[in-house]
Amino acid sequence: VEPSPGLSERIGPTTLKLEHLQVTGSFKVRGALFALSRLPPGTGVATCSAGNHGKGVAYAARRLGLQATVYVPASVDAAKLRGMQDLGATVIRSEHAGFDDTEPWAMEEARRKGLTWVSAFEDDAVMAGNGGSLALEVLEQVPDLTRIVIPLGGGGLAAGVCAGMPERMRVIGVQHERSPAFRLSQVRGEAVTRLPAADTLAGGIEGGIGRRNYALIRDRVEVVEVDEAAIHDAVRWLVDAHQTLVEPTGAVAVAAARTTLGADEHTVVVLTGRNVAYATVAALLR
Amino acid sequence: VEPSPGLSERIGPTTLKLEHLQVTGSFKVRGALFALSRLPPGTGVATCSAGNHGKGVAYAARRLGLQATVYVPASVDAAKLRGMQDLGATVIRSEHAGFDDTEPWAMEEARRKGLTWVSAFEDDAVMAGNGGSLALEVLEQVPDLTRIVIPLGGGGLAAGVCAGMPERMRVIGVQHERSPAFRLSQVRGEAVTRLPAADTLAGGIEGGIGRRNYALIRDRVEVVEVDEAAIHDAVRWLVDAHQTLVEPTGAVAVAAARTTLGADEHTVVVLTGRNVAYATVAALLR
Repeated sequence: VEPSPGLSERIGPTTLKLEHLQVTGSFKVRGALFALSRLPPGTGVATCSAGNHGKGVAYAARRLGLQATVYVPASVDAAKLRGMQDLGATVIRSEHAGFDDTEPWAMEEARRKGLTWVSAFEDDAVMAGNGGSLALEVLEQVPDLTRIVIPLGGGGLAAGVCAGMPERMRVIGVQHERSPAFRLSQVRGEAVTRLPAADTLAGGIEGGIGRRNYALIRDRVEVVEVDEAAIHDAVRWLVDAHQTLVEPTGAVAVAAARTTLGADEHTVVVLTGRNVAYATVAALLR
Repeated sequence: VEPSPGLSERIGPTTLKLEHLQVTGSFKVRGALFALSRLPPGTGVATCSAGNHGKGVAYAARRLGLQATVYVPASVDAAKLRGMQDLGATVIRSEHAGFDDTEPWAMEEARRKGLTWVSAFEDDAVMAGNGGSLALEVLEQVPDLTRIVIPLGGGGLAAGVCAGMPERMRVIGVQHERSPAFRLSQVRGEAVTRLPAADTLAGGIEGGIGRRNYALIRDRVEVVEVDEAAIHDAVRWLVDAHQTLVEPTGAVAVAAARTTLGADEHTVVVLTGRNVAYATVAALLR
């Protein structure tokens, strides 16, 4: 954690929680480590992910002596694919471009091979490891916080944080205004699990919300929305004010703190990840 | 610390020591904390620095309940000045543009006001706190290292690291080819304490070497030199391969690892700081 004088001036005492410094570059390694640590030695595990969850599973498997297979969409970023291979995972590229089409195929492949599936979203151990352990750690580090601000995409992180955070503390989830799955779910009265692709650099908060996750958070989380420009500004501001580089999804809680959040609270703002391609950073800072 | 698969491929197992993550953005807070912790409560301390040492002293003073005065050259970066003020220090700007002219004036001012002087370079407690504590920590984290690579400027960090590191482990200091104070000192047989200003973004390894520091390291440290292009490349490479942002001085040990160091050792490469202006980052990554 690190205090933020700049945000503190705007919204009251503010602490950054630096999850982008995790060994795989994001908080996702928490859930992967916890989920895989509950499996018998020698288990072959499989998952589908083009990003931070895949890297987390690859790291956890190597650390725990398991064999990981990560199925990735054809559109996977070369650096991320290499990162998973460096960590010892078997990486299998699908013929499908996107995640939503890749996952069902990957689950069927894994079943055929007798591998144990570790979902990025709808797995209680992953949720507890990701958001639950994060919440408990924040409570130790910043015991007098009154609210915590996190990115809200599929809802896995939010579900774990809501479970770990005492009722008296507010949980603020940040969504993209172009992909407001939570707001739409509230209107419809049930989880909107799929949304058309939105044009954003913050892929982690794009798309629908998990059914189970939505049920776990709908009465607990407060949601604010940010726009693309505010996210880009937040990435730039973190470089300028904190000399800290995060991926666009990792900066959305800062974007909310700088644009929409009210003042006079003791706030923890979570920076979730740093896995961003060089070209994206260069373009954003230009 | 964090393993570096990319450097490991080139020079053998390599671990990055992440001193840029220190609370003030550089290792200098180590020496400031140790030096100030030895002073009686209520002491007024003063130093001269436009950068990381000044920020370290400001932070340590606030933490220990002392009052810090930091004298800065007229050319001080606005963001760094603000950073010291945010930490509660009294910042006094000199009429002199550079550090070398500001320091004697600042020492005289401090003497007149009865303040205790804390030199950035020629203070044994600062050296022990900076490089000594760093060496001891590295030995705990990477007990089987065979060499450690650090930036070498005035020689304060190197003096402390040489003192803390067992004889069997090599200490590699990295200098700028345009400002080779150590090589020139070896030729002359005594410390070259002043050098004409060199054109570099890595200000921390520019200029002469301290007389006392030189005596402490001359028979212990091995020195390699890097050029400006290699330093810029190293900053870019750290963003690309580790999603990590450091100041140019903080990347010179990586520059050496990527260009001049031999292979087959277990190497610790120290990233010393992250205090870099936004415009510099944007220009470097373009």
